[in-house]
Amino acid sequence: MSRPLPEPVINLINELRKLSGVGEKTAMRYVLNLMKRSPEGVRALGETLYRLAEDVKPCSVCGFVSDGDLCDFCSDPARDGHQICVVEGVAVVLALEKVGDFQGLYHVLGGAISALRGITPKKLRIGEIVQRVSDGDVREVILATGADAEGETTALYVRKMLEGLPVKVTRPATGIPMGSSIEFLDAVTLMRALRGRKEL
Amino acid sequence: MSRPLPEPVINLINELRKLSGVGEKTAMRYVLNLMKRSPEGVRALGETLYRLAEDVKPCSVCGFVSDGDLCDFCSDPARDGHQICVVEGVAVVLALEKVGDFQGLYHVLGGAISALRGITPKKLRIGEIVQRVSDGDVREVILATGADAEGETTALYVRKMLEGLPVKVTRPATGIPMGSSIEFLDAVTLMRALRGRKEL
Repeated sequence: MSRPLPEPVINLINELRKLSGVGEKTAMRYVLNLMKRSPEGVRALGETLYRLAEDVKPCSVCGFVSDGDLCDFCSDPARDGHQICVVEGVAVVLALEKVGDFQGLYHVLGGAISALRGITPKKLRIGEIVQRVSDGDVREVILATGADAEGETTALYVRKMLEGLPVKVTRPATGIPMGSSIEFLDAVTLMRALRGRKEL
Repeated sequence: MSRPLPEPVINLINELRKLSGVGEKTAMRYVLNLMKRSPEGVRALGETLYRLAEDVKPCSVCGFVSDGDLCDFCSDPARDGHQICVVEGVAVVLALEKVGDFQGLYHVLGGAISALRGITPKKLRIGEIVQRVSDGDVREVILATGADAEGETTALYVRKMLEGLPVKVTRPATGIPMGSSIEFLDAVTLMRALRGRKEL
């Protein structure tokens, strides 16, 4: 960062740059933006960050974000505990909830197995899902990890871990996404879509 | 925001969305990113925000950001007080400093005159630059406001306000930016570049 900026500004820029996708220019833009506000406005943002650090932690059962011991899903008696949808991260839960179709519970792994990035199965909440299935009355585990190499590997690994347990293990369908032209699809998607064809 | 997220998360998302260019998705991405850090890491960002709110305010002379009464420029005896470069905002100062060519002082107006956005001359630090010129030994004022309609208006207005004072008022050259093809330039830039042509 250039010399003339006072230290508190440089410190804030450096902290903001730790956010994914935020470079020097974006960080600077945010800081200039913040400086246009009243000190109270800036402090309000600081305060919400403290609240996040203090009050929010993963749900002790499913790993979704929560400000108590259990998240809103796990503490909701209306959700169907017979079905557990296993996902890589919190963002996937939010995407699925926007659809609103799934009424079961979730299990957030905290990532996908990746040799490249050093994410071994032990770093993910895989033991916990096996435990949940062993303990409870779970009838189906939907492995909604990504349709990329890492997500596939993770799904296969979790399926293997669940072997022998009286539970149905499924995976969402792969195929042509709605609204897309077939000519622009990648070969793997197209191959899978063709192999998985259904009678009209 | 969707229902299952705990309140501290939603509050933080709402605060982050107040930053220019940050929508719901970006805010959510930042929050998920923050939640992957330790509470200490999140608090560190909060702390830098507090420091910004407490310690950083505009330089009492030029309006640039400062953590004291005077900014690094105004308190630097090596800078040439005979030249003042008038700019719309702090970001312009940083851009000019990256060039490193200008050795004078700055004057940050805090925006440009805009009837559309209700920014009257009184809302800008125009009286202050007139005062600086009246008080001190200023020989040249460079009006480096934007080359758009608002910047031009502001430059003309400041020039008018400085009329009668023994100071040279200049404006950076407009023309074809380096590295650009002439065919894609807008008509006004091209017209100005032609009218301002120089002998080779």
